[in-house]
Amino acid sequence: MSTYGTLFRVTTYGESHCASVGAIIDGCPPGLQLSAEDIQIQLNRRRPGQSDLTTPRNEKDAVQLQSGIEQGVTLGTPIGLFIRNEDQRPHDYSETDLYPRPSHADYTYLEKYGIKASSGGGRSSARETIGRVAAGAIAEKYLRLAHRVEIVAFVSSVGKIHLPTTVESTNEEGDEAAEPLSQEFRNLLSTVTRSTVDQHPTRCPHPETAERMKQRIIRAKDASDSIGGTVTCVVRNLPPGLGEPVFDKLEALLAHAMLSIPATKGFEIGSGFRGTEVPGSQHNDAFVQREDGSLGTQTNWSGGIQGGISNGEDVYFRVAFKPPATISKAQTTAKYDGESGTLAARGRHDPCVVPRAVPIVEAMTAIVLMDALLVQKSRAAAASLLPPITTLPPTMVMPQKARESGRVE
Amino acid sequence: MSTYGTLFRVTTYGESHCASVGAIIDGCPPGLQLSAEDIQIQLNRRRPGQSDLTTPRNEKDAVQLQSGIEQGVTLGTPIGLFIRNEDQRPHDYSETDLYPRPSHADYTYLEKYGIKASSGGGRSSARETIGRVAAGAIAEKYLRLAHRVEIVAFVSSVGKIHLPTTVESTNEEGDEAAEPLSQEFRNLLSTVTRSTVDQHPTRCPHPETAERMKQRIIRAKDASDSIGGTVTCVVRNLPPGLGEPVFDKLEALLAHAMLSIPATKGFEIGSGFRGTEVPGSQHNDAFVQREDGSLGTQTNWSGGIQGGISNGEDVYFRVAFKPPATISKAQTTAKYDGESGTLAARGRHDPCVVPRAVPIVEAMTAIVLMDALLVQKSRAAAASLLPPITTLPPTMVMPQKARESGRVE
Amino acid sequence: MSTYGTLFRVTTYGESHCASVGAIIDGCPPGLQLSAEDIQIQLNRRRPGQSDLTTPRNEKDAVQLQSGIEQGVTLGTPIGLFIRNEDQRPHDYSETDLYPRPSHADYTYLEKYGIKASSGGGRSSARETIGRVAAGAIAEKYLRLAHRVEIVAFVSSVGKIHLPTTVESTNEEGDEAAEPLSQEFRNLLSTVTRSTVDQHPTRCPHPETAERMKQRIIRAKDASDSIGGTVTCVVRNLPPGLGEPVFDKLEALLAHAMLSIPATKGFEIGSGFRGTEVPGSQHNDAFVQREDGSLGTQTNWSGGIQGGISNGEDVYFRVAFKPPATISKAQTTAKYDGESGTLAARGRHDPCVVPRAVPIVEAMTAIVLMDALLVQKSRAAAASLLPPITTLPPTMVMPQKARESGRVE
Amino acid sequence: MSTYGTLFRVTTYGESHCASVGAIIDGCPPGLQLSAEDIQIQLNRRRPGQSDLTTPRNEKDAVQLQSGIEQGVTLGTPIGLFIRNEDQRPHDYSETDLYPRPSHADYTYLEKYGIKASSGGGRSSARETIGRVAAGAIAEKYLRLAHRVEIVAFVSSVGKIHLPTTVESTNEEGDEAAEPLSQEFRNLLSTVTRSTVDQHPTRCPHPETAERMKQRIIRAKDASDSIGGTVTCVVRNLPPGLGEPVFDKLEALLAHAMLSIPATKGFEIGSGFRGTEVPGSQHNDAFVQREDGSLGTQTNWSGGIQGGISNGEDVYFRVAFKPPATISKAQTTAKYDGESGTLAARGRHDPCVVPRAVPIVEAMTAIVLMDALLVQKSRAAAASLLPPITTLPPTMVMPQKARESGRVE
Repeated sequence: MSTYGTLFRVTTYGESHCASVGAIIDGCPPGLQLSAEDIQIQLNRRRPGQSDLTTPRNEKDAVQLQSGIEQGVTLGTPIGLFIRNEDQRPHDYSETDLYPRPSHADYTYLEKYGIKASSGGGRSSARETIGRVAAGAIAEKYLRLAHRVEIVAFVSSVGKIHLPTTVESTNEEGDEAAEPLSQEFRNLLSTVTRSTVDQHPTRCPHPETAERMKQRIIRAKDASDSIGGTVTCVVRNLPPGLGEPVFDKLEALLAHAMLSIPATKGFEIGSGFRGTEVPGSQHNDAFVQREDGSLGTQTNWSGGIQGGISNGEDVYFRVAFKPPATISKAQTTAKYDGESGTLAARGRHDPCVVPRAVPIVEAMTAIVLMDALLVQKSRAAAASLLPPITTLPPTMVMPQKARESGRVE
Repeated sequence: MSTYGTLFRVTTYGESHCASVGAIIDGCPPGLQLSAEDIQIQLNRRRPGQSDLTTPRNEKDAVQLQSGIEQGVTLGTPIGLFIRNEDQRPHDYSETDLYPRPSHADYTYLEKYGIKASSGGGRSSARETIGRVAAGAIAEKYLRLAHRVEIVAFVSSVGKIHLPTTVESTNEEGDEAAEPLSQEFRNLLSTVTRSTVDQHPTRCPHPETAERMKQRIIRAKDASDSIGGTVTCVVRNLPPGLGEPVFDKLEALLAHAMLSIPATKGFEIGSGFRGTEVPGSQHNDAFVQREDGSLGTQTNWSGGIQGGISNGEDVYFRVAFKPPATISKAQTTAKYDGESGTLAARGRHDPCVVPRAVPIVEAMTAIVLMDALLVQKSRAAAASLLPPITTLPPTMVMPQKARESGRVE
Repeated sequence: MSTYGTLFRVTTYGESHCASVGAIIDGCPPGLQLSAEDIQIQLNRRRPGQSDLTTPRNEKDAVQLQSGIEQGVTLGTPIGLFIRNEDQRPHDYSETDLYPRPSHADYTYLEKYGIKASSGGGRSSARETIGRVAAGAIAEKYLRLAHRVEIVAFVSSVGKIHLPTTVESTNEEGDEAAEPLSQEFRNLLSTVTRSTVDQHPTRCPHPETAERMKQRIIRAKDASDSIGGTVTCVVRNLPPGLGEPVFDKLEALLAHAMLSIPATKGFEIGSGFRGTEVPGSQHNDAFVQREDGSLGTQTNWSGGIQGGISNGEDVYFRVAFKPPATISKAQTTAKYDGESGTLAARGRHDPCVVPRAVPIVEAMTAIVLMDALLVQKSRAAAASLLPPITTLPPTMVMPQKARESGRVE
Repeated sequence: MSTYGTLFRVTTYGESHCASVGAIIDGCPPGLQLSAEDIQIQLNRRRPGQSDLTTPRNEKDAVQLQSGIEQGVTLGTPIGLFIRNEDQRPHDYSETDLYPRPSHADYTYLEKYGIKASSGGGRSSARETIGRVAAGAIAEKYLRLAHRVEIVAFVSSVGKIHLPTTVESTNEEGDEAAEPLSQEFRNLLSTVTRSTVDQHPTRCPHPETAERMKQRIIRAKDASDSIGGTVTCVVRNLPPGLGEPVFDKLEALLAHAMLSIPATKGFEIGSGFRGTEVPGSQHNDAFVQREDGSLGTQTNWSGGIQGGISNGEDVYFRVAFKPPATISKAQTTAKYDGESGTLAARGRHDPCVVPRAVPIVEAMTAIVLMDALLVQKSRAAAASLLPPITTLPPTMVMPQKARESGRVE
């Protein structure tokens, strides 16, 4: 369905060429200072036409707030918002009507609904993500103001061009020696900001790699083709305690959210797939005492989550985006009636989605964390009112003082 | 929380050392022939003590059905079931009480709840997955009887030892030439069965690789260490139309379910992360007419899902499992009070979880598909009762005959 | 929260004086012919200014469809819609700002959110029901087209003036003799239509009673006061099998929906509170064979629901609406600061809400039934694919033919 | 389905004659002292065989806690519990197998599921409520410890014998003079305790009325018949701010919960149906300053809820229970095959359910309030972390100090 969340709930509507796209955001904490500009900033990072690496369609995507806010402050009631579709040209793609476009959703929508929108990607269009980006901007503002949470996503690969993330092992046995991720990359995770990310149109914060990525995208564009890539996202200052065992572990919620973004094919958290290749003795994150006396971990191969619950370290993960299915290059494929033919898309499209995917990844991350935070706040607040536990051994119980304050708060 | 699903709902309870673990499965279709044996088969594949590659703990894990079934037939009402915990020894792990175990959930549970179980993994224990495996066996039986759906998972890597899945490109440019997955691997996906998977204790269906994996696991065991791996799962004969745009795309639901399994770090579907490296012209799955006149795709880099909706091709995906955090090897780490010390686990544990994870991956897959199927059945049945659509161009509408029959049925 | 439903989901937004009110309706079956006019008809029955019995505010409440529909046919994707608020005068009520209005939500919104809309009823305003009426009109169209379901609500009392529903017992013992509802009233339930309901501005289909009600409302209006009343609703041709034991019995869902309408204070189904006064031997609905061979019930004190599941008989229930809290008459009450004072509302208001509540009751009924129907369709479709049950005694199983067809379809 | 709640979630399983009935309670705050005895007390008030007014079946209904609790303290993880069915005699009712019992769920279960339990009420049996009573006892313990909430239900009518709740108006015009509920009854609401309720087997706290009720029940029993009644419930010390506009108003949640109890036919809150008969000037609850400086209301016709949100006054409501459908008296009714015949139940049954319904009403009330409280705690905690609102007029904002403390805490 089109709703995400338990306490922070986002519901979106809209196809690629209908009157508007929009969302209702329910459960935003009351008393949050919020303006249209807070939302517009991220919408602008998502919209097409930002550089010659993206589709030349130029849509302003101006958000119109309808409810839930008065004099710039949220009321706690649902925030309705919509963005007019300026591009309502249903016939732009019309010559392709006899073909289900390969690796698009034309065929599956017809199988599912028995009917599909006349043109464009319908509900599977990237325009649907506008509502999510708007909702994410609201979530993010709360997270930043209340907990100083920082969410930064960036492009970590385009095609075979990767940020230098790993040091290849030269050991024959291999697995004993290599770390899943290089120190250089871990430093990047600690320091990267949206401002450094936006310094290059690829949204890769490593200048040399960014330039190579740009050339790769241009090569795809010139070939009337497309190319995939990955986006990495890091979350700093996240309070510990978020994520609900069993089914709603924090990494499970993030994976769900990321794979709900169009064109995604994979998700890995912390050490991810590379972490499967090293022994436990190397992969375990030993505890150390931090300067403030609290516990932290020496390494962070866990990606800030243990047992499905955030531990206060940085959460970081990587998302795979396939090459866009819409290409101008001719393709041999069957029509709905089974006859084989040649299809060439005429519509404008992105040769690579990852630069524009960055704010979408940030938005879905913010939505997930906001919802998980609200759920945990309830538990912490509820537990803080109970009488002290005096009958259990101390290793089973958090010190009473911390319980009363409620860590998540 | 501890509930998964919209129409097929699974709720589990139980810690590692409490009286029992169990589940309530709600929404099972009425009239399904179901016995305890149907469930026990998969529980037996999950339980410890199956071979020298797994923990020597030997628990029978015998399921006891409580409700929702009469004379071997489901009533459509909730199926309550539980499995006694034979190993209720709370002091087995007691010497570790002063330490939060590295990369375990001890620390985060305490942060989240302010209290934790006295010993063992509590709710993060792998024993919690017993309820899921039981629920999955029920889902699977329906899927098989009603739609001939086949779900087979197998071990695709242990440490750096991988099934031969890809052919490395020798082309310098690289991305134009290589396919994300080799033909040999794709053949395996089409033919692998649980019976072939179970022929080797590693549950890898490729004998030579299996043997190397076994040696790798034994090496980890002998080193008082552990090692990670990956499980690949394929679903055959899945009806098209499953998966709910926007937030509940089928791959998003699968990613959520997989990352909810303890020790998982990643998920990729179809071409996955490798698919990000090839151009769209190579990645797109062209449509072809099948022998029965319907449309299929020539390749299947999409992994059987397009736009979040199943297309009738095989669904396949890969899940990353980290090396088990419990190792006998001594680790330097801090106690709860911040003091550094040396911790060595005495408890019995698996040096590698992937062989036993196979039935868990299958179970979570079955649960996800069952729920998605029930949701889609409702839509198909509802649409089938409406008057024919006569006013739209034919490319927007599935032929009336197909609409009436309801594809998913 | 602001979302209702499992498979047919309605989410609304909007305060009384914000830019617009609206809704997203998710899960509407694809292929349904739907126009703005289908929705506008019920919005017009709800809007103020219809007669001299309602508030003189005259708002057009014109619905604008945004998505989910193309060329007059639903796509199965979310239907976004909104209605501009013409009356955005935030200062109309401003003199009352120092007072929490008695029996309004001013005080409780402030307690709940720590902030409230500057004026008007905010989210508790009756304007919020616009989105529900729109959603209900969509649900109703499906129910009518696919199952010939008829939903008719009408005013059954205003103050102490009641439709003649019961025959008072003259028997001294009392309870043995009287029926909970008179034959005349049961006849009305079988025959009443929206057209007969709309013949009188009170929406009471009994002309003499309607006229007395009208006088009662005018008396309240002239006294700068208000008066309550009840609305009765009947649903005809509802398929059997709707409603989900245990927590989501059909009557529980209806009660929830009705008590979610502003100003409601009670709900009773079938014989209701009067049914508590008669013996079981009189209250039980004996089964009889209908002309088509199927089973029906001789009486229908159950109100069409047994064990929480619809039985194919008419569903009918009654909803209590309190007298509107907004009155022009002066009231002695405390200000926010605790000081006592005199408050007299200046705003325009309805002296009695029940005439305008009729389409709201119908809408919430349609939404509940639609959602319950979609859930049951899934079960019926799923069960229909299973092999015949041959091992159970025939009294435990519905004949196979009926199972295969799926009764709800 | 069989799950209730958003953050405090209760899932039950079990038919009347299966191996056990049970529940999983998820979301209980961690750190709550909880023993089996806390639960057993309410189970004992619900179980059959308590007096000669109830069924002579004598089942111990001893609860067995499985998980989520260690050394008498909750862990915050799901609490699994079950109660063995001692009465597993599937043939007790067997002679009735050819008949769908009038006003029972036999017929509708068969319509819904295509199959039904061989005997007894299956899932519609009152035994299903055992899991709810257990869950309610847990919720109640938290509410009492953390907020001193008191929940007391009692029998307010049996047949036509009512507690003296109202003073009949002698005024000809009627509605101007009468109050919906008498002062005597309102005093009862303020003072009634479980101990006074349990002093009489009818659970009516008004001795003379209780005795008349008892005679009425005995008369029904002697006549092989049954009789209905009502239960009234009052909640004292409930924090303000509970209940979620729009769809989940607190009264809507309560109505839902009450109508989900078997045999219920109606619900009214505060003034209820009688409140529809008085003018707004009389019905409005004027605000007054309480001794502690806070605001309260002079009257409480609202029943402690305004705009769907609790206001800190007592919440009270009344629930209608029909006469039990199972009677020994012969009934003329049709068999499944349509043939008319005579049916007389042999099984043991309650002539009147209201005495045993009292703890069930209390339990469902506690479950609803607990869930609503947890949702509101999250909002209050989230809002308390935001910077002060300085730009809005004071009548829109709760004083900052109250915001920071979070009223619900």
